[in-house]
Amino acid sequence: METPRTHAGQPDSNIEFWFDFGSNYSYLSMMRIEDAAARHGVTVTWRPFLLGPIFKSFGWDSSPFLQQKAKADYMWQDMVRQCRKYHLPWTKPTTFPRRALLPIRVALLGAEQPWLGEYCRRIMALNFAEDRDIDSPETMTEVLAQLGLPATQLIDTAQSEPNKPKLREQTDTAKARGIFGAPTFFVRGEMFWGNDRLDDALDFAAQQGRR
Amino acid sequence: METPRTHAGQPDSNIEFWFDFGSNYSYLSMMRIEDAAARHGVTVTWRPFLLGPIFKSFGWDSSPFLQQKAKADYMWQDMVRQCRKYHLPWTKPTTFPRRALLPIRVALLGAEQPWLGEYCRRIMALNFAEDRDIDSPETMTEVLAQLGLPATQLIDTAQSEPNKPKLREQTDTAKARGIFGAPTFFVRGEMFWGNDRLDDALDFAAQQGRR
Repeated sequence: METPRTHAGQPDSNIEFWFDFGSNYSYLSMMRIEDAAARHGVTVTWRPFLLGPIFKSFGWDSSPFLQQKAKADYMWQDMVRQCRKYHLPWTKPTTFPRRALLPIRVALLGAEQPWLGEYCRRIMALNFAEDRDIDSPETMTEVLAQLGLPATQLIDTAQSEPNKPKLREQTDTAKARGIFGAPTFFVRGEMFWGNDRLDDALDFAAQQGRR
Repeated sequence: METPRTHAGQPDSNIEFWFDFGSNYSYLSMMRIEDAAARHGVTVTWRPFLLGPIFKSFGWDSSPFLQQKAKADYMWQDMVRQCRKYHLPWTKPTTFPRRALLPIRVALLGAEQPWLGEYCRRIMALNFAEDRDIDSPETMTEVLAQLGLPATQLIDTAQSEPNKPKLREQTDTAKARGIFGAPTFFVRGEMFWGNDRLDDALDFAAQQGRR
């Protein structure tokens, strides 16, 4: 289901934002990318995908952070400090990484809708600030209704054809483009990996706009 | 062989810098840490160690970057951009990661000497700017002589007791403290991993100084 683009024509500068709601470093980017991009005069293209199949293709059952205890321990400590730095609320999720199939399907469905940014921030806040499970129709209904959207209709459409195979295709595209983690950004085909590269990616995008 | 401390008493604020000469992200930190720390009023404690045994303990034969082609490809692209950002010369090493046992032994021997920073920057530049092998007595002699140091004596001492077991102990300490990669920094016992956290670590160190 193609939705109309919310801006006319091709933007001068754009950033593709590839994310999964289960990814804690995607949380850091999600909460600031829309404002930061606007300040740079850059538009955001939302690219929800599933990290799970990517990790499986590397032979991992779950997040690479869980493969090494030392790294996982560090990562949680880093998140506390990063959230302080970005003035974001933080609660270590009791389930990690959280399943987020339905929220991602809804995000894919709404990827070109004006409500997408706010929707994604609310889902991320549930996971990483309120420690709530996010992969249920009840939670989806709650979030979508808060945004004044037709929750039941969106959830049904998100879970039906052609949205389901479209998510698989999106994830295959992620793999084909060399994505190995999230968040990942693309600007004019150049890849930037990790929340730590969001500012570099936006600077690079904004340079184009100034040419 | 304990060497005298180059500053009197305990500094107000300090950063421990754990590095391996084979580590490309350690290169980025090495070339700027001494100046950046001085600007923050922070002293640097040099902690050379070997990443190889740490990686082996996770079941890897070599750098984790080499375990995933997509990640390795990205990393080299990232290095080009990072070096541009920090105004550093860059040549992709034809051997990666480079063996650096002798240079690391010399670094451990000189860890509290005033020449250590300049020595380390020269070794890093050979590896990542000039694409030269660094693990030979000839290269060590060249670098140490350029610094006006007694090369032969330092190389002999670096390769003899008690410096050799001291390097093993240092690497064991790295592992015991939860280090899983390089560069890693400690400030007041808090760990910061990666060149991307050097500024945060220095800010944290400088806060102490202002108390």
